[in-house]
Amino acid sequence: MNKNDRKAIALHKKLGGKMRTIPAVPVRNRADLALVYTPGVAAVSSLIAKDPRKAREYTMKGRTVAVISDGSAVLGLGNIGALGALPVMEGKCALFKTFADVDAIPLVLDTAPLKLRSASTQDEIDYIVQTVLAVAPAFGGINLEDIGAPKCFDIERRVIEALDIPVMHDDQHGTAVVVLAGLINALKVVRKRIESAQIVISGAGAAGFATAQLLRAAGARHIIVLDRKGIIDSSRSEPHKKELAKFTNRKKKRGGLREALAGADILLGVSGPELASAADIKLMAKESIVFAMANPTPEIMPDEAKKGGARVIGTGRSDFPNQINNSLAFPGIFRGALDHHVRKITTKHKLAAARAIASLVAKPTSTRVIPDMFDKRVAPAVAKVIR
Amino acid sequence: MNKNDRKAIALHKKLGGKMRTIPAVPVRNRADLALVYTPGVAAVSSLIAKDPRKAREYTMKGRTVAVISDGSAVLGLGNIGALGALPVMEGKCALFKTFADVDAIPLVLDTAPLKLRSASTQDEIDYIVQTVLAVAPAFGGINLEDIGAPKCFDIERRVIEALDIPVMHDDQHGTAVVVLAGLINALKVVRKRIESAQIVISGAGAAGFATAQLLRAAGARHIIVLDRKGIIDSSRSEPHKKELAKFTNRKKKRGGLREALAGADILLGVSGPELASAADIKLMAKESIVFAMANPTPEIMPDEAKKGGARVIGTGRSDFPNQINNSLAFPGIFRGALDHHVRKITTKHKLAAARAIASLVAKPTSTRVIPDMFDKRVAPAVAKVIR
Repeated sequence: MNKNDRKAIALHKKLGGKMRTIPAVPVRNRADLALVYTPGVAAVSSLIAKDPRKAREYTMKGRTVAVISDGSAVLGLGNIGALGALPVMEGKCALFKTFADVDAIPLVLDTAPLKLRSASTQDEIDYIVQTVLAVAPAFGGINLEDIGAPKCFDIERRVIEALDIPVMHDDQHGTAVVVLAGLINALKVVRKRIESAQIVISGAGAAGFATAQLLRAAGARHIIVLDRKGIIDSSRSEPHKKELAKFTNRKKKRGGLREALAGADILLGVSGPELASAADIKLMAKESIVFAMANPTPEIMPDEAKKGGARVIGTGRSDFPNQINNSLAFPGIFRGALDHHVRKITTKHKLAAARAIASLVAKPTSTRVIPDMFDKRVAPAVAKVIR
Repeated sequence: MNKNDRKAIALHKKLGGKMRTIPAVPVRNRADLALVYTPGVAAVSSLIAKDPRKAREYTMKGRTVAVISDGSAVLGLGNIGALGALPVMEGKCALFKTFADVDAIPLVLDTAPLKLRSASTQDEIDYIVQTVLAVAPAFGGINLEDIGAPKCFDIERRVIEALDIPVMHDDQHGTAVVVLAGLINALKVVRKRIESAQIVISGAGAAGFATAQLLRAAGARHIIVLDRKGIIDSSRSEPHKKELAKFTNRKKKRGGLREALAGADILLGVSGPELASAADIKLMAKESIVFAMANPTPEIMPDEAKKGGARVIGTGRSDFPNQINNSLAFPGIFRGALDHHVRKITTKHKLAAARAIASLVAKPTSTRVIPDMFDKRVAPAVAKVIR
């Protein structure tokens, strides 16, 4: 355990949780109470019961997002369960409020009862979907978080279909948006075009799947995705990998990372630590771009990637240049969705968000392709285009 | 719509919801972020994943209560659904924070999917129980609210059994505690004893059921409960009324309110507006006590009750003396349960809470049997005995 870990533990113990609730108006006396609670609140409840659309104006629904996780794929820690995930969800809520003044409430779902009765993955998906739908009324948006692949795909799709509020699994789309934002500028630095770039994505989980799809929507035509077994092709049986096989690996390459990297322009790592070496990067085309985003240990450390000849290098970490971090995207996306009454986050929204983020770096250089995550212009710029 | 209603509606529209979330520490820069979120939060998550009991210390769980409703029995408005109930739950959360510094989060459950498939009451109970259990991990306590009888009884029992955090349906037990607190002092004013007092409870819903049980636990031996059909006896088929019949109406009276009131010492109204007249009260014993708590219109208006000879008169309203209001009980009960790691709210806790509330009125008089709801001593006094 390093010094920062010890400080984090001490801080959490001191705080006893990172989110507080606070009434928007003081309740000091009977007159206040008569407005905030009984009897006045009955008039507000009646109004909403008659016209449920009014809830957005008169309740927290118009300004609050739920951050929901089952704790099945938390940071680099994996399936640590609801309680283990709670500090992460609280932290995420703190970022929502800090970056975009979105009120956010963490909910972590207890799936232990399912494990007790050896429930199937399908049962688990049903259970999570049903719970999210059941608690949805109080919220104006739902940020699904740290839910493992492949169940996250079905869960997100079903929740989106059932609800009339924006729902986004941030591990998928937040990542995809920020990766695309960084790529837009990195491609400018190396003077290449996304349409002709050879792109290799290491990792076919939530982030890899969504990134491949968003890059495709942005014009990318040459994408190869790899998982632990190597390059994904149509022989795979999992539905989301079958889906990937439909539009990736058009040249029908076979093999692993080295085979994929031969001649590639871009390596995007959304997988695990230390999967590539300088020698691997040397297989890539000149002026290569490497975003190695596994956290805390990237797929390849920046100095190794540089040794291999990469021109633009990004990671998920704050201690290297070009930090590719979801917090550039999700606060503004939900801020915009709430402000503009957006019911679904579409591919167009994600493309627009990526461009908005990228546009804030006036003159991209190899060490600056993405804005700083504390750049106060980011969330409003993103929110503006989510409409 | 009266002036207060119009003001309440305007205030809700201005605020757009009454509860806000706020990070407990600012996130100003990378150093803050490294503690509140990645990478430091991973150390906290690992700690909790290894020992889930630590969640109470390191997360919001130790200080946060969920206020959960399906909107099936809201104030005097009835079954208005999740969104209609939301302003009430937000108001309740504001009171939690105001009176006892308990962080509270409103959750309103969408039961519309059940209605669509004409689900049975049992299905609805299962659905609500399952949802509450699923979202429970983030919370240190659960306040069930405005859930209709009789399903509230099964729901509360099953949630209490399944969870190791305190769970309380406030419409039942909050009401019962405050009624008992008021009665303890009212009985002093009229120099009667609870053991020999003839008690009539008008209303066999959530509040009536729980009040009868708590008064019995406090020593009351002569209780009659009525519902719309009249005095409850063993001929009733609903389980909770059968349960009531076991220990109430020992003299096997039959009939309605008038028959029940003949010679009674206490009338507790937890039913509906204007069910009794001065003439009815005249049937009671001398020095009678009338708590007419239907809101906003009591079972009998105080001046009518007085005309009928009642000595101590209470209502649920703030514009008459002796306001019997749940907010004297629930904030302190949950504050104490959180502070003292209480896993179940027991009958002993409820009796102790009632006595603690009553004890704050040093010299009870007919117009002051219960503390003011803004009396700052109340929540700490209640919290102290919930251990």
